[in-house]
Amino acid sequence: MSSDPLVIFTPSGKRGRFPVGTPVLTAARQLGVDLDSVCGGRGICSKCQITPSYGEFPKHGLTVAEDALSNWNAVEERYQQKRGLKAGRRLGCQATIQRDIVIDVPPESQVHRQVVRKAASARVIEMDPATRPHYITVDEPDMHEPTGDLERVCRALAAQWDVPRATMAPGLLRRLQPILRKGNWAITVALNTPQEGAVPQIVAAWPGLKEGGLYGLAIDLGSTTIAAHLTSLETGAVVASSGIMNPQIRFGEDLMSRVSYSMMNPGGAVEMTRAVLEALDTLITDIAKEAGVGLDAVLEAVFVCNPVMHHLLLGIDPVELGQAPFALATSDAMSLDALALGLTALPAEAQIYLLPCIAGHVGADAAAVALSEQPGKSEDLVLVVDVGTNAEILLGDTRRVLACSSPTGPAFEGAQISSGQRAAPGAIEAIRINPENKEPRFRVIGCDLWSHEDGFAEATAASGITGICGSGIIEAVAEMRIAGLMDGSGLIGSEAQTGTNRCVPNGRTHEYVIFDGSAEGGPRITVTQGDIRAIQLAKSALYAGARLLMDEIGTDTVDRVVLAGAFGAHISPLHAMVLGMIPDVPLDKVTSAGNAAGTGARIALCNRAARSEIEKTVKAITKVETAIEPRFQEHFVAANAIPHKTDPFPHLATLTTLPDLSFNSGKDDGGTRRRRRR
Amino acid sequence: MSSDPLVIFTPSGKRGRFPVGTPVLTAARQLGVDLDSVCGGRGICSKCQITPSYGEFPKHGLTVAEDALSNWNAVEERYQQKRGLKAGRRLGCQATIQRDIVIDVPPESQVHRQVVRKAASARVIEMDPATRPHYITVDEPDMHEPTGDLERVCRALAAQWDVPRATMAPGLLRRLQPILRKGNWAITVALNTPQEGAVPQIVAAWPGLKEGGLYGLAIDLGSTTIAAHLTSLETGAVVASSGIMNPQIRFGEDLMSRVSYSMMNPGGAVEMTRAVLEALDTLITDIAKEAGVGLDAVLEAVFVCNPVMHHLLLGIDPVELGQAPFALATSDAMSLDALALGLTALPAEAQIYLLPCIAGHVGADAAAVALSEQPGKSEDLVLVVDVGTNAEILLGDTRRVLACSSPTGPAFEGAQISSGQRAAPGAIEAIRINPENKEPRFRVIGCDLWSHEDGFAEATAASGITGICGSGIIEAVAEMRIAGLMDGSGLIGSEAQTGTNRCVPNGRTHEYVIFDGSAEGGPRITVTQGDIRAIQLAKSALYAGARLLMDEIGTDTVDRVVLAGAFGAHISPLHAMVLGMIPDVPLDKVTSAGNAAGTGARIALCNRAARSEIEKTVKAITKVETAIEPRFQEHFVAANAIPHKTDPFPHLATLTTLPDLSFNSGKDDGGTRRRRRR
Repeated sequence: MSSDPLVIFTPSGKRGRFPVGTPVLTAARQLGVDLDSVCGGRGICSKCQITPSYGEFPKHGLTVAEDALSNWNAVEERYQQKRGLKAGRRLGCQATIQRDIVIDVPPESQVHRQVVRKAASARVIEMDPATRPHYITVDEPDMHEPTGDLERVCRALAAQWDVPRATMAPGLLRRLQPILRKGNWAITVALNTPQEGAVPQIVAAWPGLKEGGLYGLAIDLGSTTIAAHLTSLETGAVVASSGIMNPQIRFGEDLMSRVSYSMMNPGGAVEMTRAVLEALDTLITDIAKEAGVGLDAVLEAVFVCNPVMHHLLLGIDPVELGQAPFALATSDAMSLDALALGLTALPAEAQIYLLPCIAGHVGADAAAVALSEQPGKSEDLVLVVDVGTNAEILLGDTRRVLACSSPTGPAFEGAQISSGQRAAPGAIEAIRINPENKEPRFRVIGCDLWSHEDGFAEATAASGITGICGSGIIEAVAEMRIAGLMDGSGLIGSEAQTGTNRCVPNGRTHEYVIFDGSAEGGPRITVTQGDIRAIQLAKSALYAGARLLMDEIGTDTVDRVVLAGAFGAHISPLHAMVLGMIPDVPLDKVTSAGNAAGTGARIALCNRAARSEIEKTVKAITKVETAIEPRFQEHFVAANAIPHKTDPFPHLATLTTLPDLSFNSGKDDGGTRRRRRR
Repeated sequence: MSSDPLVIFTPSGKRGRFPVGTPVLTAARQLGVDLDSVCGGRGICSKCQITPSYGEFPKHGLTVAEDALSNWNAVEERYQQKRGLKAGRRLGCQATIQRDIVIDVPPESQVHRQVVRKAASARVIEMDPATRPHYITVDEPDMHEPTGDLERVCRALAAQWDVPRATMAPGLLRRLQPILRKGNWAITVALNTPQEGAVPQIVAAWPGLKEGGLYGLAIDLGSTTIAAHLTSLETGAVVASSGIMNPQIRFGEDLMSRVSYSMMNPGGAVEMTRAVLEALDTLITDIAKEAGVGLDAVLEAVFVCNPVMHHLLLGIDPVELGQAPFALATSDAMSLDALALGLTALPAEAQIYLLPCIAGHVGADAAAVALSEQPGKSEDLVLVVDVGTNAEILLGDTRRVLACSSPTGPAFEGAQISSGQRAAPGAIEAIRINPENKEPRFRVIGCDLWSHEDGFAEATAASGITGICGSGIIEAVAEMRIAGLMDGSGLIGSEAQTGTNRCVPNGRTHEYVIFDGSAEGGPRITVTQGDIRAIQLAKSALYAGARLLMDEIGTDTVDRVVLAGAFGAHISPLHAMVLGMIPDVPLDKVTSAGNAAGTGARIALCNRAARSEIEKTVKAITKVETAIEPRFQEHFVAANAIPHKTDPFPHLATLTTLPDLSFNSGKDDGGTRRRRRR
């Protein structure tokens, strides 16, 4: 047995014997311990910090002496003076092994560190980005052995980083020579390696050691809004988030009107592509500025979007998506560079990744939700709905996952509602109706108080009350149902039927007055019979889509429901279920995943393996096309009632705080209403 | 043994037995016979034409009956009526095997057909282009099994052409859907497969069967002129050639002045790159128009050029090439697409290939000469010189190849010569001096007559006589030496010394009057002492470069000399040797390779294997840097004499038509002159 000192790394437990004088980094590399380094052991990047442990380790039968590592050296001294090392830390490339030692690798020194996501349901993201920095020293040119600068860069990567081959984009090659000379033949290159084992591409270079790390963007390109998250490719931390309206709205609010615009206007698709690229350039520039990150360090972007946005982003005319058979130009994941995409804010060599589309109506955003929520890894049967102008619906468990898209229309987003508006200050976002006196109280975006609370009037005076947004209208309709202001068919009762003068005639039907500021020249906010019908159409489409997937799997119930989408986060599970948007499950089995699509984008940005995983997953998903499925229409009609004409909602029925909402329990729906009015 | 019919293919000799009814194309494919097809056997491309042979084949012990193939079918009938088949030809995909048969595959039906080059020294080019057309029928989209159009295109390539994987550039993806629908799900795609076994990229697509074939450009990007050859990627035939001046001339005539321009002017390199790209766009558009070829079918371009042009083409500032150690940004071969290069005349997806550079002063043009002339495959020691403003020099045989570049300056191209001009109508391109009466006769570009012939004056009246070009001045100096008008040191004698009044004083030296039209207001064309010195400098540099390589290899003689470069074609071997431009060899061992660099480009365009071959060859070439080699200066000084101060020219001495030119035979160079004057 060797008498070389024994080295044990924690937390990995990897161990081995190394000759006295071996640097800790070298030992870690030889053992395959996950210890970071950008400078390759030159004592300048400080990524390889480790914590030696001293004393007794009975578990290992080891006593570690204080002199188990070499003394603090000049490089560490200088680093300490310039930037300071945490107490107890050493630089792994400088400290050498002298005796038996236990060495801890703190999380921030691990390449594949784990990032814990906030949401409770969330799995941990393991950092394994495609783009990583490497510091190299390059041989100077030699007339007697002429080779190109690029060839010597590649030689350095091979010798110093075990990267046997690499390519360089022509755009970067144009800038390489001055960078090498400015760095005095020491540079940092960013290598993009899309998959383990692929030939890496050098996508950026900086003189000397690049400070500040590399970044990527996770971009959720929605029909209405574009949200971007600037993310560190080292730590996975989101350093800035920002959103912008999708400027394509001026060509059509919903997707189909954009497809129509393209059909009707020659060059219309090109115009819409240009608009979205310009908006992205602005958004990217702003977000980098906000975070104080140079755009030269932003080397990746992952996009998730629905199929129409996917095509318009890539410059593909979406016309085929407007008509059966809804053929995508491509459904697979796409990798291209910023130059080919036409983004000018990013370096031309920045690598863009688009998640795969699932089908002509089920896009990369649904794929991102699948990546984030992992229905295929769920032991119980989970329904994931991403609620928006189009609803993406996933249903599955470890055995099988199905997906469809349902055209809910814009009512859930407050559009096509008489007093509807986008979620913005002044919009009613939440509402409660007292079941006794039928009086409403509500909360307005921009004001934390409810309308009956002291100071509400003053607090809302500035922005005023301007309308009702998506979550507000959903709650209003559900609350009206709970309060007995309308019956299971969605018909609003008269003052005589409901016993409140807030139910007033409006033509041949009635409307419920939430707020009337007309005396002061303000708005009069009501829920009309038309609004109820719009919400009924939207929720029926959503429910029918979910039902169709349940049919396909052969079940009448699901175990749990996940509401995804930025909008999903604001819908209360109770109101969603009272409305019959989602199938009946115990209330505590309805969770919100927040912006699951955006999270999926961030996972794909931080972890290469997640990309191949979702590419494989998507191929295994059973696609259901709602537009051609006759049962969709049946489900849609049956789901029109609130909560539902035929499907039982047993969990809802057990809630003692609610009246009996069963539509199908009595033959006479008027009876329900009458019963409650008593 | 099978009783299936025996099929023998010629010229390959491949044979096998196939069931009655097997199409000839199928049999050919199974045997690996080189039989072309674009439509994959659908009877529409007619590339698979074969000639059945009937009668006795004693060599094979075979008698082929007239009914050995199936009868002429409807597809062949239609093709015959529409376009006509050559007598005796059949379509290989339609004719089926009925009995034992001998089938000849004519050269034009072979994929890897051979193209015989004109030049005697030339090897045959085997067609093996990177880009080839494939006709496919694509499944229509199906809502129940949603996949993208691209994925179904790839599926068709796998099923119909055994291409398991393919990618598509984003730019083409933008155009794919309408092409598929226009072609009613039958399209032709062009696949670019840079190396055998690489994943092909779909670089173009057309509805239905693409007529007219695919093309590529072989481009020799010179400092002064740009020459392009539009070449069929099917037959290797050059369908059009065209040239254009390099517009960078306005930034500097020679390479070093362009490098200086870039050093002195911020953005100067960008300006020069833009200029050359614009010129290329014009040239490419014109040449395609001239040939009647649509630019959509021009899918490749191979460039050869010196290192400075190489960098300026790629948009790399050539500043490093202007100073030691002459570091190239990259020396390896480059592949990129037209979009990345910035060429807009070609489709964005067209694939550009630049041959590797050999060293900072020895470019892709020299590599192309090496590819064309194959010094490394020569049994005898061959010196290849590519004469231009810079001379590229290769020396070698099967054992070893060396290369250097020598700064000859522009004198060989008629620049910096008192009466010098570019090779253009009006320029004296050839000259002879009568050794008896010292009278000149000359030939002018644009006129086939010599100046003493009848009708010469009338023939040159239109263009006039305007100056003397590169080949003219070389011949003039050599002829002056032969005629004894100057001595071995290059000193022009006086009238008294030479016995002709054409040698007249010019300051402290003399000049020789070739033509004096000054009485009629025309030019007076003379060879001044300064002109002699300029030519001496140029030829000394060329010779010294060659000598340096000979030293390196340890030889005083070479077996043969190849003069390459468009200019090389116009230099007479005798005059080149009298001048001492090249080492002494038997005159019949001096050959011209014409535009060898352009030929090298064409070889790389037509044959993928040639690319990897030259990439490997270049790495094995020994590079000699003339600028830092002290012996270069010695050789340069010694080569100043005409033909040479010390090196013997024994073969030249045996030429009875010449006087004794030996400079080194007598101690007194004046003696030589005196001896000849006798």
